[in-house]
Amino acid sequence: MKPPVRAAAVVGAGAIGVSWVELLTRHDIPVVVADPDPAAADRVRKSLGDQAGVTFVTDPARAVADADIVFEAGPERLDVKQELFARMDAAAPLDTLLTSSSSGFTPTNIQARCAHPERVLVAHPFNPPDLVPLVEVVGGTRTAGAAIERTVDILAALGKEPVRLHRELPGHVANRLQAALWREAYYLVQEGVVSVADLDRAIASGPGLRWALLGPIATQHLSGGEGGLRHVLEHLGPPMVAWWADLGEPTFDAALIDRLVSGVEDEVGGREEALRESRDHALRELLTLKARAGLQEDQ
Amino acid sequence: MKPPVRAAAVVGAGAIGVSWVELLTRHDIPVVVADPDPAAADRVRKSLGDQAGVTFVTDPARAVADADIVFEAGPERLDVKQELFARMDAAAPLDTLLTSSSSGFTPTNIQARCAHPERVLVAHPFNPPDLVPLVEVVGGTRTAGAAIERTVDILAALGKEPVRLHRELPGHVANRLQAALWREAYYLVQEGVVSVADLDRAIASGPGLRWALLGPIATQHLSGGEGGLRHVLEHLGPPMVAWWADLGEPTFDAALIDRLVSGVEDEVGGREEALRESRDHALRELLTLKARAGLQEDQ
Repeated sequence: MKPPVRAAAVVGAGAIGVSWVELLTRHDIPVVVADPDPAAADRVRKSLGDQAGVTFVTDPARAVADADIVFEAGPERLDVKQELFARMDAAAPLDTLLTSSSSGFTPTNIQARCAHPERVLVAHPFNPPDLVPLVEVVGGTRTAGAAIERTVDILAALGKEPVRLHRELPGHVANRLQAALWREAYYLVQEGVVSVADLDRAIASGPGLRWALLGPIATQHLSGGEGGLRHVLEHLGPPMVAWWADLGEPTFDAALIDRLVSGVEDEVGGREEALRESRDHALRELLTLKARAGLQEDQ
Repeated sequence: MKPPVRAAAVVGAGAIGVSWVELLTRHDIPVVVADPDPAAADRVRKSLGDQAGVTFVTDPARAVADADIVFEAGPERLDVKQELFARMDAAAPLDTLLTSSSSGFTPTNIQARCAHPERVLVAHPFNPPDLVPLVEVVGGTRTAGAAIERTVDILAALGKEPVRLHRELPGHVANRLQAALWREAYYLVQEGVVSVADLDRAIASGPGLRWALLGPIATQHLSGGEGGLRHVLEHLGPPMVAWWADLGEPTFDAALIDRLVSGVEDEVGGREEALRESRDHALRELLTLKARAGLQEDQ
């Protein structure tokens, strides 16, 4: 499917911004990259090679003037983003989509100083964004439904997996789910129930294997045999509610940080670079095998 | 590595029991299977084919008399398990390991009526147990450390990923981590933030992809670049604690069950059998690619 994008802009050429540039150029979409740092062009070329169709400017207003969609990936500071979106809003045509990669701010806050907030929204990618398909799409109180739908369509056409949120919440969806898991994980390590290495193995050799393929609710549905999810919830429900009541609240302090850091060093210390490479390679293969199994759109 | 097991017993020939039989016969270990149902032998043969070295009895005391290790996978009722372990404890040699696959009961409870509780412990596998490597190993207040270590060694030699818990907790470790994730997942669906299908995609095309490869804490460590986990925790810590405070408590009632069931039916309804097959096939390939990438022991 040809993405319905004639031209795009990326504002902020850090790691997230570069991954947007990579995605767009892979689909032969011309991109104007705006970054206040004049060395950004060299950084992007170093990371992606010389790309036809990539132009560099320092002024975000210039970058957005001719774009159908803008991916903002600047500093994670609300005042900076509000100022940036106000400037882009003033410079961009009315039908240009202005998206922010923000993980921490809501679109309602980000669009606060825009005269045309109806096309301002969050499109939050996930690390490493050049490999992980998920993009969370969420609008603010003044975002038009049509802008959300167009963004979802564009991202899907680019081979991403856009997930539409119907409400703004701190952490969107995926970071909340991660935070829920981390909370209990940290608690179990803080309490000395398992080592960090064993905690990681308990996920990566256990439920994590299934979550990579189908997600937590579909997985639970398949585990119920003929009766499916209803059977599971009616039987597992009461013990699960009891587990919920027993889940912990770690004390997030220096001692916990020390314990986690020393545990992860025991687990992977000194092998980080090699492990990141193996992980990223395995991640690419995992996406390929999912596509082959019909469990994921082809990238 | 040759597993240090001369002979084994499996007590209870349901799905979990059958998967223990499959694992043991794959390593050429003779197994006596005990099940009160005389049709159990046919059921196991139908599932695994005719296996040399598998004997069937109805009396658990007979099954354990000559075993180095016993895998109990009977009904999940505490009175039944306590009675069963008392009988097995009386019949088995003193150095026979008596393990329970229980997900819901603690080893201290399971060993309560045994005269020799020092070799009684939980070895909890994970669904589908013939594919998922994780086995949680945890002793009760009267279990000997040596029994836990021997069980871990045996399971590792059988190609499983044993994870040792230093304390008994409801749900062990992996089910608590799952419950933490499900709680927030159900909450987000109950609140109408995302559809069930989108919730599943948010995990399976997002963090789930990474959890399958490295586990949540190692993943977080790798995301921190040079500074590693310490950098991540010092910077992400405060917003994460804020997210924790905002995570939800779903009301687990009939309306929630209806909503989840109708959502999962929209997502995968009618495709369950095909999906389970694709998932299991993909799961095998995922384990192979992890082994090739050095991220998982070969099965």
